[in-house]
Amino acid sequence: MKKDEYYMDLAIVLANKGGGNVNPNPQVGALIVKEGRIIGQGYHEKYGKAHAEINAFKDCNESPEGATLYVTLEPCAHQGKQPPCFEAIIKNGIKRVVIGHLDPNPLVSGKGIKAMREAGIEVSLNVLEKECEELNKIFFYYVSQGLPYVMMKYVMTLDGKIATSAGQSKWITGEIARQKVHQDRSRFMAIMIGVETLILDDPQLSVRLENGKNPIRIICDTHLRSPLASKIVSTATEIPTIIATAESDPEKQAPFLKAGCEIILVSCLEGRLNLKELTKKLGEKGIDSIILEGGGTLNASALKAGIVQKVQTYIALKIFGGKEAPSPVEGHGIEQPNQAYLLEGAQITYLGEDILLESELL
Amino acid sequence: MKKDEYYMDLAIVLANKGGGNVNPNPQVGALIVKEGRIIGQGYHEKYGKAHAEINAFKDCNESPEGATLYVTLEPCAHQGKQPPCFEAIIKNGIKRVVIGHLDPNPLVSGKGIKAMREAGIEVSLNVLEKECEELNKIFFYYVSQGLPYVMMKYVMTLDGKIATSAGQSKWITGEIARQKVHQDRSRFMAIMIGVETLILDDPQLSVRLENGKNPIRIICDTHLRSPLASKIVSTATEIPTIIATAESDPEKQAPFLKAGCEIILVSCLEGRLNLKELTKKLGEKGIDSIILEGGGTLNASALKAGIVQKVQTYIALKIFGGKEAPSPVEGHGIEQPNQAYLLEGAQITYLGEDILLESELL
Repeated sequence: MKKDEYYMDLAIVLANKGGGNVNPNPQVGALIVKEGRIIGQGYHEKYGKAHAEINAFKDCNESPEGATLYVTLEPCAHQGKQPPCFEAIIKNGIKRVVIGHLDPNPLVSGKGIKAMREAGIEVSLNVLEKECEELNKIFFYYVSQGLPYVMMKYVMTLDGKIATSAGQSKWITGEIARQKVHQDRSRFMAIMIGVETLILDDPQLSVRLENGKNPIRIICDTHLRSPLASKIVSTATEIPTIIATAESDPEKQAPFLKAGCEIILVSCLEGRLNLKELTKKLGEKGIDSIILEGGGTLNASALKAGIVQKVQTYIALKIFGGKEAPSPVEGHGIEQPNQAYLLEGAQITYLGEDILLESELL
Repeated sequence: MKKDEYYMDLAIVLANKGGGNVNPNPQVGALIVKEGRIIGQGYHEKYGKAHAEINAFKDCNESPEGATLYVTLEPCAHQGKQPPCFEAIIKNGIKRVVIGHLDPNPLVSGKGIKAMREAGIEVSLNVLEKECEELNKIFFYYVSQGLPYVMMKYVMTLDGKIATSAGQSKWITGEIARQKVHQDRSRFMAIMIGVETLILDDPQLSVRLENGKNPIRIICDTHLRSPLASKIVSTATEIPTIIATAESDPEKQAPFLKAGCEIILVSCLEGRLNLKELTKKLGEKGIDSIILEGGGTLNASALKAGIVQKVQTYIALKIFGGKEAPSPVEGHGIEQPNQAYLLEGAQITYLGEDILLESELL
């Protein structure tokens, strides 16, 4: 059992190499071990390309017959962009398969396992299950809920301010923290802001990394007030841009469509966009993950709508002060401490002089 | 040299045992080593009682003649509540003295070292100097500046709120974090709040720990608005209580004096108490350390007055939201990010489900 965990751990390291390039597919790693020797290894490298198991077979430096296959996620059993993996496993004469996590996709789960067992292969399940789940949080959430995994991200001072009382926020954190933000942007499929941020900051929301993949930009803009001259709208032909709005007048929508934006019509709830409805529509479009970089108002609405799964709090070791300085979550707020939104699993990373605290909504 | 650091490290562990019982004296630990054997150890246990070196001599299980003495702080050379330690060191036939940190007190520094060297003792200085300084941050600051070391402490949510929009703050953190607050209270000589907190929360500010020492309570109350019926004022005969005020009318002061409070008269600066002047007066009274548990207004004034040395930020993994919910530092705040108060050396402690982030003002 200890040995199984050792090899599964290596398969997880392999799987991680696919991060950012496989969405909305899961990250998967595979390792083939024969008589204590690792004879082949592989991972899912790119969306639409070969699965991890197939890459591991290709990598084999001797016959995999009689070997054990370690794979972080249940091998697929359906004909998708790739042939089902369990067939290749049987064909290659694998004797035992060790699986980290079952597939949450009802189209897949259990079928391949059954076929492999019928072919006389010994199948062990749930080795380092938690770690393998961690690897594919976004995928598991998206496949099981049909909704994008939303990570609320904000940058604040030690006294909880996201800008000075004069509205200035450039810069709060240092270079290393800002680099991490760009890495995350390239790993998520989309990034969402509110129209207020668009008007005030005119951000580009692009990824400033070599070979960094730009996320789809989503603007929450109830009344279609986005400036056509803003950096985001004016670059909509280069980087996919979605405007979510309640404004259905085709004449008002026309200039945005002409600029290359896509418009998603969403109903209103208490004067604001119905964010639950919006995420449902975004999920249907294949968007599996969103970084929410809202201001205090949009963040408050997102929490209230229950669309947030994770919170990234960047904390800079500085104090702005100011009763009127904006804070990361505004809106009405709760009244009694026991009504608070609760989080768990604080993971802390030192990023130069700044700190990143990551936690998940309970 | 490595060996010196090894023994000094043990002396630091000893010194730490005196925490909370020796103020305004420093914490000191001493170790006597002869031919590789630790033959005696001691630490300064209580204010007014024997110094670490003397306790180590008392602890010796063989003659200290020819041995090496490790001591975290330069042995004292003046007749205070105890006879000067360097005399005992010479008299006991110590061959070598290894000192962690020089004494910042001009009454002491260098004199004992000179006398010991003249007596033929080899003296080595500054071994684990930084660690020995850390041990006595408060003492070094107080002795060199004549001002109390002020630690600003606040408890906030992950979105930077110290209460809900309805003003509720009981409770934000869990039991383990609250326990730590009480430990710190028993280690600091005084605790300071503003009159607004007194009126709104009516706290007791006492230490709920077995054998916990209650800190002196200091209320910043410009216009003497403290309610006589408040828990703090009505227990002023039991726990020392200071009211800092700009109100000089003896008639208005009388009931507070009668209740057992001490009054410190302080001038006004922009309509608020001159906190720099107040800390100077508190330092003159022998108060070496203060925990500032202010609301946002007092905290902002304290930062502006430059009286804060350290910030303790307790972060609870919950979100209150609310544009109107109070935040830890309010006031006017700064306008440009580069005007921020900067901190350094983030030390993070997990306290159950909460996080404590400690850092020092640059």
